[in-house]
Amino acid sequence: MTVKIGVVGTGMIGRDHTRRIQEVLTGAEVVALSDYLPKNAEALQAAHAPDAEIFATGEELIASDSVDAVLVCSTGSTHEAYVLAAIAARKPVFCEKPLATTAEGARRIVEAETATGTRRVQVGFMRRFDRSYNLLKATMEAELGAPLMIHAAHRNPTVPEQYVTPMAIHDTFIHEIDTFRWLLDDDFVSAQVVFPRKTRHAHARVADPQIVLLETSKGVRIDCEIFVNCRYGYDIQCQVVGEDGVATLPEPMAVTTRKDERLSNPILTDWQSRFGAAFDTELQDFIDTVPSGTVGGPSAWDGYVAAISSDACVTAQETGDIVPISLPDRPKLYD
Amino acid sequence: MTVKIGVVGTGMIGRDHTRRIQEVLTGAEVVALSDYLPKNAEALQAAHAPDAEIFATGEELIASDSVDAVLVCSTGSTHEAYVLAAIAARKPVFCEKPLATTAEGARRIVEAETATGTRRVQVGFMRRFDRSYNLLKATMEAELGAPLMIHAAHRNPTVPEQYVTPMAIHDTFIHEIDTFRWLLDDDFVSAQVVFPRKTRHAHARVADPQIVLLETSKGVRIDCEIFVNCRYGYDIQCQVVGEDGVATLPEPMAVTTRKDERLSNPILTDWQSRFGAAFDTELQDFIDTVPSGTVGGPSAWDGYVAAISSDACVTAQETGDIVPISLPDRPKLYD
Amino acid sequence: MTVKIGVVGTGMIGRDHTRRIQEVLTGAEVVALSDYLPKNAEALQAAHAPDAEIFATGEELIASDSVDAVLVCSTGSTHEAYVLAAIAARKPVFCEKPLATTAEGARRIVEAETATGTRRVQVGFMRRFDRSYNLLKATMEAELGAPLMIHAAHRNPTVPEQYVTPMAIHDTFIHEIDTFRWLLDDDFVSAQVVFPRKTRHAHARVADPQIVLLETSKGVRIDCEIFVNCRYGYDIQCQVVGEDGVATLPEPMAVTTRKDERLSNPILTDWQSRFGAAFDTELQDFIDTVPSGTVGGPSAWDGYVAAISSDACVTAQETGDIVPISLPDRPKLYD
Amino acid sequence: MTVKIGVVGTGMIGRDHTRRIQEVLTGAEVVALSDYLPKNAEALQAAHAPDAEIFATGEELIASDSVDAVLVCSTGSTHEAYVLAAIAARKPVFCEKPLATTAEGARRIVEAETATGTRRVQVGFMRRFDRSYNLLKATMEAELGAPLMIHAAHRNPTVPEQYVTPMAIHDTFIHEIDTFRWLLDDDFVSAQVVFPRKTRHAHARVADPQIVLLETSKGVRIDCEIFVNCRYGYDIQCQVVGEDGVATLPEPMAVTTRKDERLSNPILTDWQSRFGAAFDTELQDFIDTVPSGTVGGPSAWDGYVAAISSDACVTAQETGDIVPISLPDRPKLYD
Repeated sequence: MTVKIGVVGTGMIGRDHTRRIQEVLTGAEVVALSDYLPKNAEALQAAHAPDAEIFATGEELIASDSVDAVLVCSTGSTHEAYVLAAIAARKPVFCEKPLATTAEGARRIVEAETATGTRRVQVGFMRRFDRSYNLLKATMEAELGAPLMIHAAHRNPTVPEQYVTPMAIHDTFIHEIDTFRWLLDDDFVSAQVVFPRKTRHAHARVADPQIVLLETSKGVRIDCEIFVNCRYGYDIQCQVVGEDGVATLPEPMAVTTRKDERLSNPILTDWQSRFGAAFDTELQDFIDTVPSGTVGGPSAWDGYVAAISSDACVTAQETGDIVPISLPDRPKLYD
Repeated sequence: MTVKIGVVGTGMIGRDHTRRIQEVLTGAEVVALSDYLPKNAEALQAAHAPDAEIFATGEELIASDSVDAVLVCSTGSTHEAYVLAAIAARKPVFCEKPLATTAEGARRIVEAETATGTRRVQVGFMRRFDRSYNLLKATMEAELGAPLMIHAAHRNPTVPEQYVTPMAIHDTFIHEIDTFRWLLDDDFVSAQVVFPRKTRHAHARVADPQIVLLETSKGVRIDCEIFVNCRYGYDIQCQVVGEDGVATLPEPMAVTTRKDERLSNPILTDWQSRFGAAFDTELQDFIDTVPSGTVGGPSAWDGYVAAISSDACVTAQETGDIVPISLPDRPKLYD
Repeated sequence: MTVKIGVVGTGMIGRDHTRRIQEVLTGAEVVALSDYLPKNAEALQAAHAPDAEIFATGEELIASDSVDAVLVCSTGSTHEAYVLAAIAARKPVFCEKPLATTAEGARRIVEAETATGTRRVQVGFMRRFDRSYNLLKATMEAELGAPLMIHAAHRNPTVPEQYVTPMAIHDTFIHEIDTFRWLLDDDFVSAQVVFPRKTRHAHARVADPQIVLLETSKGVRIDCEIFVNCRYGYDIQCQVVGEDGVATLPEPMAVTTRKDERLSNPILTDWQSRFGAAFDTELQDFIDTVPSGTVGGPSAWDGYVAAISSDACVTAQETGDIVPISLPDRPKLYD
Repeated sequence: MTVKIGVVGTGMIGRDHTRRIQEVLTGAEVVALSDYLPKNAEALQAAHAPDAEIFATGEELIASDSVDAVLVCSTGSTHEAYVLAAIAARKPVFCEKPLATTAEGARRIVEAETATGTRRVQVGFMRRFDRSYNLLKATMEAELGAPLMIHAAHRNPTVPEQYVTPMAIHDTFIHEIDTFRWLLDDDFVSAQVVFPRKTRHAHARVADPQIVLLETSKGVRIDCEIFVNCRYGYDIQCQVVGEDGVATLPEPMAVTTRKDERLSNPILTDWQSRFGAAFDTELQDFIDTVPSGTVGGPSAWDGYVAAISSDACVTAQETGDIVPISLPDRPKLYD
């Protein structure tokens, strides 16, 4: 079976996923496109999906009989409505992060999906499909005993002027939020944020760096540096300390040279290079599950919990307090 | 266009390539199978290619109008005939190594292909598609200046009883032969083999380890350890020394742990783990070129030169001499 | 000039320093010993200092004309009195940590020394003399720009039953307290301690691991894991994040092996192996300065600030609060 | 006992050893100096050894009752005579490499020393005292099983105009010759030298790089790259392959930084930085043995065998042949 996919939103990530489905992945083709700027959809059709039909609205695309499954790649504020429409149409839907721009919105999706009794929503937390993180998780489970602490860092070379302090949580740390939950199979009970001396390389409206401190329900303590003007590279670090040992996230593969009085290897400078293969694996995973009628990967529940957790982190940024995090009961659908 | 592929030989590698085409790669499907044991072809059909037709002979499969391109995965002694048949049928053919069991056989393929004026043969030297080697080659070209030396090692944990001394060249070092030529864009002019003290872990009929010393036409000197009972893992090492610096082949990605008084990471133990992704890339590359009517990757000429070079290495094993290697002129087709 | 040294306290560290002066270092000899158990002093005399005179009390030893400089290696509660006696006698004194068991005691030493107008007290914070830390400090100053954060860890394989929660500060973290001040040339303004899930390998009376969070007057944020039952080794980690880059404390020198499917190197298991050379350098530094009449290295002021800072950390352990740290003005003697 | 040392030759290494004895090491003092340019001896006296007596000739210094032990640091062609004089005077003598400029000269020293029945000559092969090599040797013995191969490299940033091809053996590789013998407890039976393409950074009269291939009596095969215009640093590499695993010489301690899109650490650029501590340990070892009347460390026999082996390597350079190496029987004194 070839899965017929409709892509809602043909901006950067929509284009990239369309190219991926058409040229890299197996078992699917893009048959439908829509964008609030029809010109964008047409350009993508021309570039990568000549046989795709262009729909005037995402709702029409989702409703079309020609579409088996939906990719929501539009601007964040529209995600909730499209995902709900896909649930209503009983179609598998892959939604780029965020699942919704508010925890309330995410909750509505969880409720709608729960009401159908079937998992059809996958959220785009691609790190769960990254090879290095999967090696780390396997090592944790095989060798470390109970996890006690995580020391982590999320470093970007630089951010644009429009990137302000709370985006360090909503746009950047949101990936760690999901990743830590997945690595630990655990949820957060509190968050705290401290602000080190600000780097002279940051613009006026962003506090940079920041350190987020999280506590989980099992007592694991996490400290994660967020440093979005570190200049030197795009660098994702994660060290897990367990009762029986310590494991460190592998560095990306690189050639070591001896040259000019240095033993060195290059550091990546953008997230596409770091997680490109994870996007492939993530979307292949979604495609592979569509025929079964139920999807895997990060769920609407995961998206909802991420929203609640990141809201607490933003409150912690604003107040300086240790902010408690409490979650509603998890519906059985997500066990 | 979906490339319709016929697979000749459904042993281990034929099965693996069929699975790869059917489940991992894009743009092709396996439509035909043949094996001298029809039962094997039927088992593979049942497992991975239910729509494939089974042919009684490789020749019939190659001749069939339903087949666009051929994979030769049969036993080595039959490669020459099948590749020649594919050339005669003007069909792209991917041939697992060796291209032929003798340099003479490989020469006949080169002559047949040259006569058609079109490159249709790709040889299964998968390391050219391995990510770590490609990073090394890019680094060499960007940073090292003229290459002067390569220090390399090919280590296996163990080999079975039927693995005897010349197989260290024909089965093991053959990959380095092609890889060094590709990395250096150069050919060998002499070979020498020295035998260190034999490990107590080797069986009686294999001299292990061995060191092969090669000289290229540009004067690059290569020393490569072949150690097929090293016990500790499957380990491929390559360091290139250039006028302006030194570059080392990256190690496979692995999680570093601190545990039990050791800082350590696992070493792979088999070639499938080490080069599995390279097989995917290699075959995808072949598939992608088929529609153009001409293929890329390692050529029949590369297979021929590898055969001449490995024959010289075996002579060097037998004589202890520095054995000169001379190549015929390269046909323009392979420039 | 050979510096004539009197050693007060001939327990483990007194014995070790005596051996060091007699056999490893240059420019000094041990001429006097005292211990509250005379037998200990006699044993040390027999083993390493046959020409040394044994004094009945530390006070008599300090007062003796035969003694140029004093090493205080006795039990912690006696340090203050001996150091004050040495200051009164206008003799250089090297005092093992702690300078005093209370901040008040340390303050009295600072006042007494300040009154003399000359620095004669060196405190035994040996990490300032460790090669790896000095390389780190040099790199910080040359390459990192303003420091923003330090991520650190102090891990021990195991601790005995008498090691209880506050000792994680007074006995273990005290070294980091001085080291961070020295690396950053800065003082702390607040401390917080969080307690991760406890390892099953810790005994009942110690909370293990702990994470200490410090803020400095320049806004540098420090997180330091203290994990004294980590089992796998004695492991001191320190990473400094600056505006222009990140630097990591070198690992101790070790041989990497490829064996048994692991690429690995040994991790040290005790502080003597880790810092043995630093003890040599530290004490040689003291000896070298004695003839000048004024000493360098960690000062009484450093010992006093360490005491104030560690008291705040213990309060932070007890309360869970973010505990402010305020220091008196620094006397000019210590600029 | 303080060992009274006379230093013959006050050039660079003589000055350095005098400083070392006077300021770093313990148990010895420099009491006598001589140099064929008295001005040099006077300058050294002024700088580091004000109490030393200056002798007009090395012979007089060696004969003086005020001298317990001799350091021969003069130009290589004079070593033999001074060492023979010290043997005749029954005084321990530390001789910088080479022991003699010819194998015949070294043989005469061996014979003279053997005739006295006591080992009094130590040769300045300092690598035997280097910490990284000692860790490697310990690992070999504990973990690798029988050694089978050594892959090594000796790289210098650059060499001056007067450094010509045979000096790659006599001045550079001579250290590896002794080190390999010591690591393996074995002797060489043949040598071969191959010349890779020459780096454009080498001047006209030196073939650079070179690769020396050695075989030992136990069948161990060694390949060692000598590359004296590698530009990037002073870099000593050594990997030992044994039946049960592989061990690699540790890199010098260095701080790893993340900066400017590189993960890197500095590489040393001169032998003083690399082996400075080994010189200290080496000479302290000599001093410590002097009172016993017999010395340890690299012996006259080791110096003699190094001379024979290096002569064979130079012949191998000149002829391109595999040159056999045969040694006389080892006198019992050196067992």
